[in-house]
Amino acid sequence: VNILVTGGLGLNGVWVVRKLVDSGFEPVVIDNRRDLTLLGEYRDRVRVLEADIMDLDALEEVMRETAAERVVHMAAMTLATEANPVRGFGVNAMGTVNVLEAARRASVERVIFTSSRSFYGDIPEGPHRHPAYLPLPETHRGDPILVYDVTKVAGEGMGRVYARMYDLEFVALRFGTIYGPGKMMRHPGQSLAVHSSIIDNAISGRKTVIPRGGDQADDIIFVEDAANGVVLATLASELSYDAYNIASGEVTSLREFAKIVRSVIPAADIEIGDGLDYLGLPLQPYCRFDITRARADLGFEPGFSVVGAVKRYVELAGDL
Amino acid sequence: VNILVTGGLGLNGVWVVRKLVDSGFEPVVIDNRRDLTLLGEYRDRVRVLEADIMDLDALEEVMRETAAERVVHMAAMTLATEANPVRGFGVNAMGTVNVLEAARRASVERVIFTSSRSFYGDIPEGPHRHPAYLPLPETHRGDPILVYDVTKVAGEGMGRVYARMYDLEFVALRFGTIYGPGKMMRHPGQSLAVHSSIIDNAISGRKTVIPRGGDQADDIIFVEDAANGVVLATLASELSYDAYNIASGEVTSLREFAKIVRSVIPAADIEIGDGLDYLGLPLQPYCRFDITRARADLGFEPGFSVVGAVKRYVELAGDL
Repeated sequence: VNILVTGGLGLNGVWVVRKLVDSGFEPVVIDNRRDLTLLGEYRDRVRVLEADIMDLDALEEVMRETAAERVVHMAAMTLATEANPVRGFGVNAMGTVNVLEAARRASVERVIFTSSRSFYGDIPEGPHRHPAYLPLPETHRGDPILVYDVTKVAGEGMGRVYARMYDLEFVALRFGTIYGPGKMMRHPGQSLAVHSSIIDNAISGRKTVIPRGGDQADDIIFVEDAANGVVLATLASELSYDAYNIASGEVTSLREFAKIVRSVIPAADIEIGDGLDYLGLPLQPYCRFDITRARADLGFEPGFSVVGAVKRYVELAGDL
Repeated sequence: VNILVTGGLGLNGVWVVRKLVDSGFEPVVIDNRRDLTLLGEYRDRVRVLEADIMDLDALEEVMRETAAERVVHMAAMTLATEANPVRGFGVNAMGTVNVLEAARRASVERVIFTSSRSFYGDIPEGPHRHPAYLPLPETHRGDPILVYDVTKVAGEGMGRVYARMYDLEFVALRFGTIYGPGKMMRHPGQSLAVHSSIIDNAISGRKTVIPRGGDQADDIIFVEDAANGVVLATLASELSYDAYNIASGEVTSLREFAKIVRSVIPAADIEIGDGLDYLGLPLQPYCRFDITRARADLGFEPGFSVVGAVKRYVELAGDL
């Protein structure tokens, strides 16, 4: 299968690319900046093309030239969308429409869209929030609050439109909070990657201080498990649904998480206050995801316990 | 109040502009093509600037230069979105983000977005459909099916984001099926404007044949009533909500409608088959809207009965 990965040099993208290579595929990566750092030792085993998803014709040409059958669309702006809504909406929403259109023109079979838990936006007060954390199914209708949320809702919406109108399969993946190595390196100072920064700080001997939120739990997933979900959705012969939660199906409080980090890195200096909502965003995104669909359809199973993931993180961080 | 109207030369836009002029305002219109036909005798009383909503800097400049306080954003692609999703999403969604951003930069007070019943997309099976037609409130969560639907959901979503983040009021208006003169002139052959074409045909002595759907009812609203809703939302000193249904709050079956047209134009030759769903789209958009919010907050009241509207239509069509 010819697989093209947009954003394949990004924090999450590289793990998808690594897994594809390990499985014997030869994924072609497009990215708008040729920074191969996170590919590590895989950098020589992957074809990387520089292309911008805002350039529809270039996208079409790459898809044709590589005879792409499956396109994993991971290129996106993350936090910067909030400070620059025009560019954020352009890259994330309009860019996704470009990918869909190029895929249609180039007769791609399937577009796998790494959407986001942001699709659900603000989790409404009730059983899905603390303390019950009832698993959130894909049928939940979201309440988008951030620019990022709206761009993911729009991207998914257009994906469904394309799948209905044209001979193109579309599937959206919505992830638990992904943690994995490299975030601080790629986006220094970004504070939403709380779990990653706790581990990074511990590894580097820096103290972590989080004023409040130790009681807040969330569904967190290690980046390699998330990548595994992407690969499964890419390779699945048939998909029953057009959206899947890719998450742990569990919740871990920030305090628990810190405890596990300390168990792996005894010198870790972590100070976390009590209470909920450590992110302090204008919405409550924390929840537990229902992963029944992904289990049944994709054969997805989170492979890492939190302690296993932290150990693996430490091991990987040394290589990056 | 300085009012700027995007798409103010369009089928619905001209009636908003006419009403604003009649109320003593001097609206400035921007449109991407300088076709003043539908403005009729108002064409000399309105300042019209050519500007494209895809050009953010041009939009900002116009808003600054005109010291716009309220921007009525009506410019949109309609049916053509389905044949050209990239351009449709660009104009309707990205274009709306441009209007919001320009408004923010130019310190506009309020953006009034003529969204659409398409926000609701497919009306789910149940009490809101035939035969019960339970009024649909603004809190209903939609199921977008068409490109057009997704663009309106995205536009509204970004409007709410802007209102939350910046000092900018945002209100979305969702209309019943608008009928009014000029549609056939502006968009010949477009078949979604069923009610308008029945009247146009009757006026021109052409026969109307609609194979099925006589029993299908829908909430229809005369274009001048719709325009009145827009003007009220534009001028209201305060708005309690960020979305309002602007509709009749009633349903009229296509057969009833034809009967009324025949009562006004006795020579009308209209043949309509039985059954439901005269549009035959991949979704069921027909419903009755709850207009409690618009009544209470905007003082909106549909002024035209269907028979009154058809009479007025005939009168206006003579002038165009």
